[in-house]
Amino acid sequence: MMTPNSSIESSGEPDLPIGAPSKMICVGLNYRDHATEAGLEAPTMPLLFAKWPNTLIGHGGEIHVPEGVRTDFEAELAVVIGRRARKVTVDEALDYVAGYLCANDVSARDLQFDDGQWVRGKSLDTFCPIGPTLVPRDQIPDPQNLGIKLWLNGVLMQDSSTAQMIFGVADIISYVSQTATLEPGDVILTGTPAGVGIFRNPPVGLKEGDEVTVEIERIGKLTNRVRVTN
Amino acid sequence: MMTPNSSIESSGEPDLPIGAPSKMICVGLNYRDHATEAGLEAPTMPLLFAKWPNTLIGHGGEIHVPEGVRTDFEAELAVVIGRRARKVTVDEALDYVAGYLCANDVSARDLQFDDGQWVRGKSLDTFCPIGPTLVPRDQIPDPQNLGIKLWLNGVLMQDSSTAQMIFGVADIISYVSQTATLEPGDVILTGTPAGVGIFRNPPVGLKEGDEVTVEIERIGKLTNRVRVTN
Repeated sequence: MMTPNSSIESSGEPDLPIGAPSKMICVGLNYRDHATEAGLEAPTMPLLFAKWPNTLIGHGGEIHVPEGVRTDFEAELAVVIGRRARKVTVDEALDYVAGYLCANDVSARDLQFDDGQWVRGKSLDTFCPIGPTLVPRDQIPDPQNLGIKLWLNGVLMQDSSTAQMIFGVADIISYVSQTATLEPGDVILTGTPAGVGIFRNPPVGLKEGDEVTVEIERIGKLTNRVRVTN
Repeated sequence: MMTPNSSIESSGEPDLPIGAPSKMICVGLNYRDHATEAGLEAPTMPLLFAKWPNTLIGHGGEIHVPEGVRTDFEAELAVVIGRRARKVTVDEALDYVAGYLCANDVSARDLQFDDGQWVRGKSLDTFCPIGPTLVPRDQIPDPQNLGIKLWLNGVLMQDSSTAQMIFGVADIISYVSQTATLEPGDVILTGTPAGVGIFRNPPVGLKEGDEVTVEIERIGKLTNRVRVTN
């Protein structure tokens, strides 16, 4: 049984496959198919937002959903930075990557949209499963051609490719580094494809006992169960 | 001459008065006088947003403003967390505080408002001066009754009191801790009072060589100069 722990203290937990990041950077509306299902124009530049590191849990950790909080899943390719990046070009950006993992950008939709600013609804404890293990950059020569899928209780909910990204990994790293220096260990979540729960008819939310699996080609499978808490 | 450095690496710099936080939590529109000048309703609950720790510099550090980026100042009371806080009550919340500092929530207004999500425009390198030194909690028995001022080149621009906060320090800590566990070293910026540059007529922005001083009663003075960079 794992402790769904977080932040600096949890970086030493054997189940968390990365250290404590100085920052977590997320990109919104970054898949063409997801922008379409949301009924929104594709952004003309990366739309950045933040999660806080208290969200991080590893493969097999429990996602804790407070009772009554409408909560959604988002399969994402996570990038971990390997060395300090400041004003790097798109061409050199991938040299700054340590490796890749699967991530689930778990989102409390009411909190996210009530605030307007997304960070609170995206940053409940345990709301960023990441794993199963860091796959070094050299094993992923092209991060823009990977199948990405999410299953909820064995039912395929998201099924796309990182080729659908509007801004690729190199674009995002270069863009962020123009204003915010990236540090080793920083985590970038690169956006989610179509198929999230909120845009389904009827909408789908995470429930007690749900099993969520994110699978990315060449990277692996990340599975977590949901526990509803008081 | 200081290195306007950031994040994990900079926590050892003698000029930065705090260690590397696992997260920085900011509260928007949290002074009655500032909500009024912005022409907005006072929020009914704390409006949280994030800065990333690459922003942190100490007293005397340079604020680097990219050329052509419209940039504003915001005097704020900063709170540093002293021990892990999870679902704490308002009554016990101040027991989780290590101490207080002055901070300047430097803001690139076009980036902030173009994105809608505020984190990018709030998180350019060097955009969070903090200091001059951590004042322990026991020296500030009532954080809700402190004069807070900001001078730009010796001209008083903000002149208010933390009594104007809509949500006090204890309210904010308790509120955040309901969903996101606070860790020792985490930084909370508690909002800015009236008088920021963007709502002046004509608007005021930071320029090369500007000297900005934040002063909070019982806590001290934080002074930084502006350098415009390419």
